[in-house]
Amino acid sequence: MTAFATPSKAVSNAPPKDSRERVGQWMRQIQDEICRGLLDADGSGGFKQDAWERPEGGGGRSRVMRDGDIFEQGGVNFSEVWGDRLPPSILSQRPEAKGHRFYATGTSMVLHPKNPHIPTVHLNYRYFEAGPVWWFGGGIDLTPYYPVREDVENFHRTLKGACDKHHGEYYDVFKRWCDEYFYLKHRDETRGVGGIFFDYQDGINDQLYCGPNPDGGAAEYSRNVPKLENRSWEQLFAFVQDCGRAFLPAYVPIVEKRKDTEYGDRERDFQLYRRGRYVEFNLVYDRGTIFGLQTNGRTESILMSLPPMVRWEYGYTPEPNTREAELYDTYLKPQDWLG
Amino acid sequence: MTAFATPSKAVSNAPPKDSRERVGQWMRQIQDEICRGLLDADGSGGFKQDAWERPEGGGGRSRVMRDGDIFEQGGVNFSEVWGDRLPPSILSQRPEAKGHRFYATGTSMVLHPKNPHIPTVHLNYRYFEAGPVWWFGGGIDLTPYYPVREDVENFHRTLKGACDKHHGEYYDVFKRWCDEYFYLKHRDETRGVGGIFFDYQDGINDQLYCGPNPDGGAAEYSRNVPKLENRSWEQLFAFVQDCGRAFLPAYVPIVEKRKDTEYGDRERDFQLYRRGRYVEFNLVYDRGTIFGLQTNGRTESILMSLPPMVRWEYGYTPEPNTREAELYDTYLKPQDWLG
Repeated sequence: MTAFATPSKAVSNAPPKDSRERVGQWMRQIQDEICRGLLDADGSGGFKQDAWERPEGGGGRSRVMRDGDIFEQGGVNFSEVWGDRLPPSILSQRPEAKGHRFYATGTSMVLHPKNPHIPTVHLNYRYFEAGPVWWFGGGIDLTPYYPVREDVENFHRTLKGACDKHHGEYYDVFKRWCDEYFYLKHRDETRGVGGIFFDYQDGINDQLYCGPNPDGGAAEYSRNVPKLENRSWEQLFAFVQDCGRAFLPAYVPIVEKRKDTEYGDRERDFQLYRRGRYVEFNLVYDRGTIFGLQTNGRTESILMSLPPMVRWEYGYTPEPNTREAELYDTYLKPQDWLG
Repeated sequence: MTAFATPSKAVSNAPPKDSRERVGQWMRQIQDEICRGLLDADGSGGFKQDAWERPEGGGGRSRVMRDGDIFEQGGVNFSEVWGDRLPPSILSQRPEAKGHRFYATGTSMVLHPKNPHIPTVHLNYRYFEAGPVWWFGGGIDLTPYYPVREDVENFHRTLKGACDKHHGEYYDVFKRWCDEYFYLKHRDETRGVGGIFFDYQDGINDQLYCGPNPDGGAAEYSRNVPKLENRSWEQLFAFVQDCGRAFLPAYVPIVEKRKDTEYGDRERDFQLYRRGRYVEFNLVYDRGTIFGLQTNGRTESILMSLPPMVRWEYGYTPEPNTREAELYDTYLKPQDWLG
């Protein structure tokens, strides 16, 4: 039992009449807020915006920063799309949506800093409606190259703070889900030190375990996690808003602390090599990427998450007792950062 | 009707008793031949071999050249593996294999030359047995950055020569299959100028159309292609051997002709950018990669195909009337090179 009362069965599960406008509006707004925060943090780079339309319905605003002082590349996307049918990968998870038109909106972001001492970070929040069903999904996760324990703890503590306002079990459940989702099976490594992730949050269905990824990726999600049903649309939307707003306070302090740490070729080479894992994850496992490609999404916006420069090296393993080895040995394994 | 007599129905379809030994032996031998040819062509770089074993059964020899005079990275793999069951992606294409142990052997190669005027090239030949079924698959395809028409034609002509010895329709059919397989749907581009590709060649089944890729990749294969059934195991094995031996004469002359062509940052940047497409294809669509990852293959050997250095750039399009534009406009579309 938690200290949080479980809402009664009487909680209405229907979205309000203006659900799409409200969520779409918020997704635009959080894109703006994040971009402002990143401009401040970088101090030099600016965003170039492309507004685009999708022939099948909808469109978006892609914003990219290149060669900033801090960010070698950063992309912050907003999109709002609709169409006749969801792709098979989603319909198999939400069969009730079959035969219905869909609406989807979301904001997503990936930042690739120049300095290897600053972690790469990813955020994505999204909302779907299709006939009788709707759901929220998304998360934030951190991928350091030369992690500092204190930074990882602060990052997680900030996310936990956002979760705790809404449900005493959210952080634990969604942190575990993040570890399981951002996992490279073929490397037996997490993508980084995690954060939070959730999907198919509709307030009624116990959909935390989504089963083997029908797209052929290997992602399997939490089994046997507590039920978090009986949340209203308003409660979930408020939760997602707090998660989105937690990004700047979770990440910007790390940038401030590490941006002046010196580095040389060794650190840069390692960063470029580790960025390869980011590519592997996004192209092999990530459902957002697969959804985008399957729905004829805008390829340039979907693949904006890929790093500006990447290196692969056959058979690389870090030297024992180095900071590179520490990343593998200590940080790329799921664990309780706030224990 | 072709000039080639269709073998009678009496042709035996059963593999010989020593089929595994013979194909496995040939796969080793072609790895050796290719490596010798590449050592000669490079003149400086050597191969580092890793022999490895797979806990579930079998193993292989991975050979990598790095920082040669010609090849920035080149990998030539041999593998021979067996196990209790084929992965679902293959069983859905070959349901007769269900419940049977399998044997698979193959040689695969990807070369990433340093000089952007030399194309990247890929070869893979493979053989499967599982209970009542067996089949050959594979191909060769070329990915130039600054293509020269004459090189493309010679490459295709050499492959056609190998095909023509065995069936008058092989080149046309397998060339078209290659164009359709090595296609990046999300970019609406072929991976390069193609070559030949085939799969599920068992001599009896009209399996040229394999349907939508069950792995979630978008590959769809030739529909309405001529039936090429009624080939014996020996005929198919002889065909595959000639295809494998066609690689060096198809590719090495291009290396010789282009290795002294000068290049600067512009050409190098374009090469690194275009290498990104290679990564996208291999991780999103390639069935060999997916098979490897699904069968707990050796990750380092499977991903040896990825380039040593890669660049992504948001929203890049080539300037009109440049050689970069020519690649997109003229070469990344299926066409009859020998017409």
